[in-house]
Amino acid sequence: MSRAPDTWILTADCPSVLGTVDAVTRFLFEQGCYVTEHHSFDDRLSGRFFIRVEFRQPDGLDEQGFRQGLAERAKAFAMNFELTAPHYRPKVVIMVSKADHCLNDLLYRQRIGQLPMDVVAVVSNHPDLKPLADWHQIPYHHFHLDPNDKPSQERQVWQVIEESGAELVILARYMQVLSPELCRKLDGKAINIHHSLLPGFKGAKPYHQAYNKGVKLVGATAHYINNDLDEGPIIAQGVEVVDHSYYPEDLIAKGRDIEGLTLARAVGYHIERRVFLNGNRTVVL
Amino acid sequence: MSRAPDTWILTADCPSVLGTVDAVTRFLFEQGCYVTEHHSFDDRLSGRFFIRVEFRQPDGLDEQGFRQGLAERAKAFAMNFELTAPHYRPKVVIMVSKADHCLNDLLYRQRIGQLPMDVVAVVSNHPDLKPLADWHQIPYHHFHLDPNDKPSQERQVWQVIEESGAELVILARYMQVLSPELCRKLDGKAINIHHSLLPGFKGAKPYHQAYNKGVKLVGATAHYINNDLDEGPIIAQGVEVVDHSYYPEDLIAKGRDIEGLTLARAVGYHIERRVFLNGNRTVVL
Amino acid sequence: MSRAPDTWILTADCPSVLGTVDAVTRFLFEQGCYVTEHHSFDDRLSGRFFIRVEFRQPDGLDEQGFRQGLAERAKAFAMNFELTAPHYRPKVVIMVSKADHCLNDLLYRQRIGQLPMDVVAVVSNHPDLKPLADWHQIPYHHFHLDPNDKPSQERQVWQVIEESGAELVILARYMQVLSPELCRKLDGKAINIHHSLLPGFKGAKPYHQAYNKGVKLVGATAHYINNDLDEGPIIAQGVEVVDHSYYPEDLIAKGRDIEGLTLARAVGYHIERRVFLNGNRTVVL
Amino acid sequence: MSRAPDTWILTADCPSVLGTVDAVTRFLFEQGCYVTEHHSFDDRLSGRFFIRVEFRQPDGLDEQGFRQGLAERAKAFAMNFELTAPHYRPKVVIMVSKADHCLNDLLYRQRIGQLPMDVVAVVSNHPDLKPLADWHQIPYHHFHLDPNDKPSQERQVWQVIEESGAELVILARYMQVLSPELCRKLDGKAINIHHSLLPGFKGAKPYHQAYNKGVKLVGATAHYINNDLDEGPIIAQGVEVVDHSYYPEDLIAKGRDIEGLTLARAVGYHIERRVFLNGNRTVVL
Repeated sequence: MSRAPDTWILTADCPSVLGTVDAVTRFLFEQGCYVTEHHSFDDRLSGRFFIRVEFRQPDGLDEQGFRQGLAERAKAFAMNFELTAPHYRPKVVIMVSKADHCLNDLLYRQRIGQLPMDVVAVVSNHPDLKPLADWHQIPYHHFHLDPNDKPSQERQVWQVIEESGAELVILARYMQVLSPELCRKLDGKAINIHHSLLPGFKGAKPYHQAYNKGVKLVGATAHYINNDLDEGPIIAQGVEVVDHSYYPEDLIAKGRDIEGLTLARAVGYHIERRVFLNGNRTVVL
Repeated sequence: MSRAPDTWILTADCPSVLGTVDAVTRFLFEQGCYVTEHHSFDDRLSGRFFIRVEFRQPDGLDEQGFRQGLAERAKAFAMNFELTAPHYRPKVVIMVSKADHCLNDLLYRQRIGQLPMDVVAVVSNHPDLKPLADWHQIPYHHFHLDPNDKPSQERQVWQVIEESGAELVILARYMQVLSPELCRKLDGKAINIHHSLLPGFKGAKPYHQAYNKGVKLVGATAHYINNDLDEGPIIAQGVEVVDHSYYPEDLIAKGRDIEGLTLARAVGYHIERRVFLNGNRTVVL
Repeated sequence: MSRAPDTWILTADCPSVLGTVDAVTRFLFEQGCYVTEHHSFDDRLSGRFFIRVEFRQPDGLDEQGFRQGLAERAKAFAMNFELTAPHYRPKVVIMVSKADHCLNDLLYRQRIGQLPMDVVAVVSNHPDLKPLADWHQIPYHHFHLDPNDKPSQERQVWQVIEESGAELVILARYMQVLSPELCRKLDGKAINIHHSLLPGFKGAKPYHQAYNKGVKLVGATAHYINNDLDEGPIIAQGVEVVDHSYYPEDLIAKGRDIEGLTLARAVGYHIERRVFLNGNRTVVL
Repeated sequence: MSRAPDTWILTADCPSVLGTVDAVTRFLFEQGCYVTEHHSFDDRLSGRFFIRVEFRQPDGLDEQGFRQGLAERAKAFAMNFELTAPHYRPKVVIMVSKADHCLNDLLYRQRIGQLPMDVVAVVSNHPDLKPLADWHQIPYHHFHLDPNDKPSQERQVWQVIEESGAELVILARYMQVLSPELCRKLDGKAINIHHSLLPGFKGAKPYHQAYNKGVKLVGATAHYINNDLDEGPIIAQGVEVVDHSYYPEDLIAKGRDIEGLTLARAVGYHIERRVFLNGNRTVVL
């Protein structure tokens, strides 16, 4: 599972048709690439093909040549592909409000190298979590949210994302609804953690909803955001057993661990290029 | 956890007030009862007290005297109680349609003594599962369901339940909606297994709903039935991890195991007198 | 995950070297095979390559030509391969003693088609489980085990296996130690379920061992048998949470579910050709 | 599960005999205490009784009178008891080496109040984790370990524990074997996290051992330390699924989450007075 330091990742997807696997593997072979892991899946319901390959090129990869060559082959299949370099570390912006359990977890995993990413900014509608960002020497932007002028705050947020060159935005318990416009801009590049097993308990106060229903399991869902709030494609879900003795505040406490773990898992999959969009579902290879 | 063969169970509940625990434990002590497990819970949100005690009475319990004596004490607390004898085996009616995984599991657990119950009848709207019941030498009643006259089939079902003296009805993937009238009659004495993590995916074809939402976990919910379909108090829930490669039929197959295990767990709790109704929630001690 | 009815499986493994993936996928393409799932793994510690491909051949596969053609390509890689036909159902012999939970579970899964196999015989050193086999119309062989002459019983067992043409032997809680000679004959084609998380609690009475150690989790391990008792390559493991209130008999009861599920999972992987031996470890694709 | 701010905890244990439950509950009633949760367990194999009660005393508890009164009643039962005040926060010393995942997790839980404890010192045989302690404003003691003179380092460690008045010592991946003498001093008041499912993979490099055995599950064990290394009474265990693609370094990474969660769970149980020693096993109420 752990990649050797010189491992590239190739991911691609296209409509289902004969020859997709061969097109990719033959090209890799011709380029002298050594495949260490290969996983492909052809979805017979959506009629779409997905592939993820890890490979090494001991002699050094001619990246430009590789891209051009593969692009030519890919054309016939209407195939999108992405080539990810060995030491890839995406720039990431994390958005938070007041709860810090997910932020603490993400920054810890960055620090020890478990999540290979560079958090270039933490953005919040509250000042509370500045000390945590400071200790990790990460710029913290507090943009006050005026309920009568949400757009101006979102413009500030977007400016940070754009200027930092962030490839991924993580909503680590950011408790504000994003505007459709910002959702559109972040389509496929922002991961949110919702504190319930979606589609159950959408919307506000899911743990209170769960308490009222008397469920015996609570969970969390990490998903890409899209226009439809709490309805974006699910990447990962986690769950824990609870019982009658858990009051709402206990469910919230229990949920913290699940939220942190589930979000970190989803971010890891994203960075390792394991996640593909397949309509409103995801394929995770 | 396993009870010695001479162990009684006392369960009770009443409004929260000072002295509830003492009222029960003092009475048990005065009667010379030896307590082996005691669990009580006072719900500060609903203001209700729940208690379950396992005990032995080596000299033999004067059951009638015990009941009368406790009834007197209980009056002041508006306390309901139930005394369950050492070798208690409730009579059970199981209702099925065509899927047999839950029935097979329940009958197996009865056979080896893991569920101490006497299945006195299997009732179905289809003839398919008769051989399985036959092999276990359990009467099988096939009552054809005429869509234009559901009440007459339900009358037949009810007659079996009543005449058999069943204390518990298990809906082991019975795929018909019960009438409000029958639900009322079965209130608190019928357990259903729903093939989703309620309240998510209520209604028909939950695994297809789950597939469409692209969830990464599927589950099952065992609950008491009440008037509101798929909304009765939850007793137990189970869950399994799935991924993109599970088509709806795979989710259904995966679900079989969870449904069987979750239903058996709920039935076990019920028979061991662990489940208390607390509004629309349950307390499981 | 569920295969379409016309899906073939190709599995292969060989020493790690450049071109292994391409050799397989190019051949499949040249034969006009449509790949639906492809998973390969190159183990950098053992230096061995493993591949499993599911594919369809709409025009009908020339099986003999396919095998010959691939054999030629495979030679250069010292690659072993196996081609499995769409409706493959291996003949299976199940060995049991007195406990029937795994047998009941396996026969149920065969009956409903969840495990595509033909159980051709049940073999036991006790007569107890004959009725269960009878009901499934499967021959039951009771071979009494004389402690002073174990070899003669093993000869009878082996005769059944051989004459039935069984490709797989399942030790479904068979409580006798097999001789090294029989182990050798069954190498790689017999799956055992051990009622602990191996390598913890090897040998007899693992649940009693677990009780004495006060563990908070119990589990089961399905593994191929080999010469070294309870040490064969692990295919699957399952686990459940327990607590102080579980006496040894409760651990045994809890264990039944895990044993059944874990064994069925391992058998399923084996039949679907997902399991590869990699020294004393397995690769499960 | 969450205690109201004015809740006391009473725990006790003694040999099994008639009247133990009544002795405790009657006393509580006579003192006007309101019981919110009561759990008792009588172990029929060890012949020992364990009880844990949460209660409120709205008029204020006469703590000294309570202790004296209960001590008198307890004498006849040879009962040990412990009374824990509402806002109890034990002083804790954490011992670490170089790995910081458990320390980071524990300090985070302290910071947000999920673990009600006061970490009064972090002690290490390495200087690496000082910045983390500094940020939480907790004194960090680096005591270099001279392999030729371990006793002198242990004396320094013990001095910190003693002078700080710590009631609990947490070995959060402290990678040195403690001397029998220090173990004896810490008996019942020090919790260690071992990175395997004990008793499997005792000793050094458990994840490498696990890799070599090809297990499909890895786990962690939190236990009290005693004389016998890696053999103290188990408080909690956690587990995660792994597969063939996990190299030893991946098992180590996967293990971090389990270790943190399992250790935090055990520490929480200890602080909430849920854990009782029962020979070499624990009872967790």
